[in-house]
Amino acid sequence: MFSGKEQARRPVLLESKRMSLIVVGSVAYDGVETPHGNVERMLGGAATYIGLAASYFTKVKLVGIVGEDFAKEDRDLLTGHGMDLEGLEQVPGKTFFWKGVYSDDMNDRTTLQTDLNVFADFNPKLPESYRSQPYLLLGNIQPALQRSVRAQMNGVRLVGGDTMNYWIADYRDELLETIKEWDFLLINDSEARMLSGHHNLKRAASAILDMGPNTLVIKRGEYGAILFRRDSHFMVPGYLLEEVFDPTGAGDCFAGGFIGYLAEKGCDLKQGHIDRKELGRAVIYGSVMGSFCCEKFGVDRFRTLKREDIDARFREFREFTEF
Amino acid sequence: MFSGKEQARRPVLLESKRMSLIVVGSVAYDGVETPHGNVERMLGGAATYIGLAASYFTKVKLVGIVGEDFAKEDRDLLTGHGMDLEGLEQVPGKTFFWKGVYSDDMNDRTTLQTDLNVFADFNPKLPESYRSQPYLLLGNIQPALQRSVRAQMNGVRLVGGDTMNYWIADYRDELLETIKEWDFLLINDSEARMLSGHHNLKRAASAILDMGPNTLVIKRGEYGAILFRRDSHFMVPGYLLEEVFDPTGAGDCFAGGFIGYLAEKGCDLKQGHIDRKELGRAVIYGSVMGSFCCEKFGVDRFRTLKREDIDARFREFREFTEF
Repeated sequence: MFSGKEQARRPVLLESKRMSLIVVGSVAYDGVETPHGNVERMLGGAATYIGLAASYFTKVKLVGIVGEDFAKEDRDLLTGHGMDLEGLEQVPGKTFFWKGVYSDDMNDRTTLQTDLNVFADFNPKLPESYRSQPYLLLGNIQPALQRSVRAQMNGVRLVGGDTMNYWIADYRDELLETIKEWDFLLINDSEARMLSGHHNLKRAASAILDMGPNTLVIKRGEYGAILFRRDSHFMVPGYLLEEVFDPTGAGDCFAGGFIGYLAEKGCDLKQGHIDRKELGRAVIYGSVMGSFCCEKFGVDRFRTLKREDIDARFREFREFTEF
Repeated sequence: MFSGKEQARRPVLLESKRMSLIVVGSVAYDGVETPHGNVERMLGGAATYIGLAASYFTKVKLVGIVGEDFAKEDRDLLTGHGMDLEGLEQVPGKTFFWKGVYSDDMNDRTTLQTDLNVFADFNPKLPESYRSQPYLLLGNIQPALQRSVRAQMNGVRLVGGDTMNYWIADYRDELLETIKEWDFLLINDSEARMLSGHHNLKRAASAILDMGPNTLVIKRGEYGAILFRRDSHFMVPGYLLEEVFDPTGAGDCFAGGFIGYLAEKGCDLKQGHIDRKELGRAVIYGSVMGSFCCEKFGVDRFRTLKREDIDARFREFREFTEF
């Protein structure tokens, strides 16, 4: 245990080169319609987006399930980003399929089709090589499964995840048992209001920090994000894009950039272990990854994105927020 | 004309002690109902809020019209903030009255009553002592009246103002003639979309900057504000309040803080005369004043607010946005 941050960070940084982030969640095919076009079927899923975004910062080991129809080119995209797919189970049947359509202003979306397929029986078992890794990001799946993954890990340094309205409403006790063990919870503003029962975000955050996590990140879509800790908070506006082609996965990419940066730096979130500005930088990298995600359909932006593009946009954030 | 900012600013600063801001707009009585309470009748109006907010930064000379019912204690509140009321005409009849009710989340409001009363014949004539002042803020009134006030000024250094959906929709040509002569336009996001015809704010801003103003400030309510210039932009998230008692006047207080700070510093907005960070600080002071406005009903917060509170909140903005 240390609280002198500067002295502590250097050895951890060197060590971090060998450390991986475990990402758990859906790997899917998506059909998406936005005002800019219509794609019938393309690679998607929370774990896919989180993993791709995080892969620019740290080694990612994926945990998920796909069917026989999972294409080699999609597998290649993931391994091309250095991902370990030992934990990506392939079983008879079809891959999870989701289809949705966005409103003209992209602020609402309607689900047209959800075929869980092989994802209905997802019961994540971590390969031995995954269990002693220090970072764990639990994508939005049933809280009991998130909890089971957490229990399979030994000595995890930092664990956090996402959830959604469905689990908050119908699996509340299970969800509370689960997030009690997390360092951070990363949800959107309406989920934060629903989980806490408070409309005001400051009050909502205070109630959620009482549930266990020491850090809450509230995603606000085009309006940016807020990170809350007991003793401070950090706010960033959303990046202004000239065109939002497809917002699918942007929240997951935020999560990937956020934990990816923390993993790259070898940080944990315990009180006294990390300073507020480092937390702010993690939120900025999350915002950067979310903004890139919207620039093309599905995961297409990650086919060409380079780390230098990411760092350039990080500097842009500094330019348009400094005063 | 100068472009070396640092050398130029010092003499202007000294000179600014004698310079005033002219504020034009409605002075009214408001009836307001929010989830926190109901006030039947209290001092309100755009010029009132703008003037009060700006008075913490610079000398304010008010231009408006009130009826015989305008109370001495309300006049005293304004003069108590150092305001010159020579331009506040008092005529037979009643003062403008507006009544509205806010939704539970305070994001919507419904107008219940609008009695223009003496405001229907408002035709601002500037007292001689107002005409050579360097700063002019035109609150939301009919564009032709805003233009007539601008025309009565000699050698104004910085002029900007507000407008609303009604003028954008039904008085478009008159409005375009008016804002063509302004340095800045300060409106909310839905007005910016309506005026420009673009949903995307970057595109909307670019179209509006083509209409004349070199600076556009878009207010986004609880989500903060964005300042656009041709070569840069600045974004700030909204201040998180634990309670919003009454958002009436918050946008006007933003305007007052924004131009008040520029007047205090002796700035103008011409390209090359002001640096991006100074503009950012003006937006922050606008945000600070808007946030204080919401903390009590009507203008009540300004009965006790001190400049040191304002500067303390400015520092808070720095703390929760720096990374």
